[in-house]
Amino acid sequence: MTETTWLWTGCLAMALGSVALFVVGKRRTQDEEGHTLIHVFVTMIASLSYLAQATRQGSTILPGGREFLYARYLDWSVTTPLLLLGLAMTALHGTHRRPGLVAALLGADVLMILTGLFYGASEATGPKYIWFVVSCGAFLAVYATLFGPLLREARARDDVRRSAYLRSAVVLAVLWLVYPVVDLLGNNGIQAVGALVTTAVLTVTDLLAKVAYGFLSTHGTSRVAEHDLAVGAVEPAPVSSEAVPSSADPRRRPGTPRP
Amino acid sequence: MTETTWLWTGCLAMALGSVALFVVGKRRTQDEEGHTLIHVFVTMIASLSYLAQATRQGSTILPGGREFLYARYLDWSVTTPLLLLGLAMTALHGTHRRPGLVAALLGADVLMILTGLFYGASEATGPKYIWFVVSCGAFLAVYATLFGPLLREARARDDVRRSAYLRSAVVLAVLWLVYPVVDLLGNNGIQAVGALVTTAVLTVTDLLAKVAYGFLSTHGTSRVAEHDLAVGAVEPAPVSSEAVPSSADPRRRPGTPRP
Amino acid sequence: MTETTWLWTGCLAMALGSVALFVVGKRRTQDEEGHTLIHVFVTMIASLSYLAQATRQGSTILPGGREFLYARYLDWSVTTPLLLLGLAMTALHGTHRRPGLVAALLGADVLMILTGLFYGASEATGPKYIWFVVSCGAFLAVYATLFGPLLREARARDDVRRSAYLRSAVVLAVLWLVYPVVDLLGNNGIQAVGALVTTAVLTVTDLLAKVAYGFLSTHGTSRVAEHDLAVGAVEPAPVSSEAVPSSADPRRRPGTPRP
Repeated sequence: MTETTWLWTGCLAMALGSVALFVVGKRRTQDEEGHTLIHVFVTMIASLSYLAQATRQGSTILPGGREFLYARYLDWSVTTPLLLLGLAMTALHGTHRRPGLVAALLGADVLMILTGLFYGASEATGPKYIWFVVSCGAFLAVYATLFGPLLREARARDDVRRSAYLRSAVVLAVLWLVYPVVDLLGNNGIQAVGALVTTAVLTVTDLLAKVAYGFLSTHGTSRVAEHDLAVGAVEPAPVSSEAVPSSADPRRRPGTPRP
Repeated sequence: MTETTWLWTGCLAMALGSVALFVVGKRRTQDEEGHTLIHVFVTMIASLSYLAQATRQGSTILPGGREFLYARYLDWSVTTPLLLLGLAMTALHGTHRRPGLVAALLGADVLMILTGLFYGASEATGPKYIWFVVSCGAFLAVYATLFGPLLREARARDDVRRSAYLRSAVVLAVLWLVYPVVDLLGNNGIQAVGALVTTAVLTVTDLLAKVAYGFLSTHGTSRVAEHDLAVGAVEPAPVSSEAVPSSADPRRRPGTPRP
Repeated sequence: MTETTWLWTGCLAMALGSVALFVVGKRRTQDEEGHTLIHVFVTMIASLSYLAQATRQGSTILPGGREFLYARYLDWSVTTPLLLLGLAMTALHGTHRRPGLVAALLGADVLMILTGLFYGASEATGPKYIWFVVSCGAFLAVYATLFGPLLREARARDDVRRSAYLRSAVVLAVLWLVYPVVDLLGNNGIQAVGALVTTAVLTVTDLLAKVAYGFLSTHGTSRVAEHDLAVGAVEPAPVSSEAVPSSADPRRRPGTPRP
């Protein structure tokens, strides 16, 4: 397979994943609706990013002659905060309880990606590896937040939520480790592996970290939603049309959240 | 009129519209204050976008020789989400009741505009019309949200709100239909009409969809605010100076929202 | 000192300031945690902006030959809204009470910075000074919001909050006055002073307005947090690990906010 074939594969697989997650993801509570929408958008944005890369519209040739697929970083600057937002929602049961913490988690993540973009765009060795080190520092801050205060928050709640959070957080943390390693060894870095291998590994990792992870996270969210509904912690949120019988008086329908 | 004259006309008319909406828009409730500020900012941002286009700072000449006024899309990527946010606020009486739904509506809208930007920037026919189709798909998702779940939410509330929502949503949906048609027929697309006609039609449509629509929406919001205040659904929010008599003890003023 | 030395100085001093504010800033309440994180991020982003300028990655040579350090404006477009958000949090005790007002304050500020970016990037005199005047207009709107409705809100609450707000707002308002003056007299404007002096003055002002102001604001926030905790207006938020004794049952720990 050529690099372009890999990029078109990523585009199509992400689009199919987006449709599948839209169909599979449930919307029985506000929380579940939010999670479903996050995974649908993450895969849809990734699909468009692969489209821009495959058509070479999201890439540029640097003065030194290296092709730089910057669309990747723009994709990641939106999709990785969304994935972390989902994790925070699982740990916190909504994010309004620790808005500062959630904003800091997403802020550190965006700094990680944007400094990674500067790393990839740099040609001079000195600045390049300063950006890489800063990006790794922000990555550590993301890890520290996921397995420090957010894990404590998840533990302070019920077992279902804690186990859903822990499984998703560990899988995400392991998959995300691939990115800085490949980006360092690959075409943007020391070039121990070429552009084709870089793109192939990143495409496969991206599909695992967005589509496969999306299904894993959706499954955990479903169990949390079932638990919440069973213990009456939340009211059901009728968001799909079939949940609102047209014969019922909509002004008094049972699932309406209190204003 | 030349294209540049049309662009300066857009700049001045949007600026005047912004001032007029600032003066006419009331601020008797939090909701009304939010709506007024949305319409003031939408027209102000549009005015600055026309300024950038008129001075040719928001435009570029593509390698193939076509002038591409990209400032339009940057303007729309901010102003169209703001207009949809206003609609969602009308339907939901604040957006905190369905945060996932509102985020998805605005997210689909931003994808619609950014894929439209890629459509406009593309010169190769293949990718160009893929972007156009994707942008139209996102447009359909916006429509489906406006006339599906959001309309159901508006209906689940009082008649004043439902009628204000429905009138604004229908007018916006019709006006917004002009954009993809003109962008397809015009200078960025199959060039059935030239740059001058494209800009003239878009300027007139923009003034209808931002200034005239702003007045229509403001009128509907006023009726909702009067209804809310009459039935005591909200406390008055004294945001303008005359609402806080300087002789009163500000710590005990009646309209202070409870913390 | 050369211009590049000044830029590296800014990079290092902002980084040290960020670490110092991380260490000094307390996290005893949600509000205090939010303020601490704001000042840590503001100085960290500024440090990265100076890094990009020092390595000349955040700069470009305009067609007319002038070097334009655009990274400054990108930095300011994120850091100045964060600083204003902190002020709004002080005045309002959280921002949910006046979301429209806070969004307008931050929106006017972003317009001020982005029109400043167009001013700096412009070479033709006509458009250049139109952008400058628009930017100053947005600056006045920021001032009017800080010393109009936000000051009234701060006054409507306790004395500790009002005095913390007023001190921070006045210091910020005075320091921010330096920017448009230097940007008008300096390298981007009428060039009454050269690039070296422009950068030196902006670096010193930036350190005062971000690091020194960060300490001042943190001190005021601490006093507000102590007052809030003393009168029981907020529950303590155990965000650092030592606040959650591992022997305690985390599900019943006293500081858990009610969901």
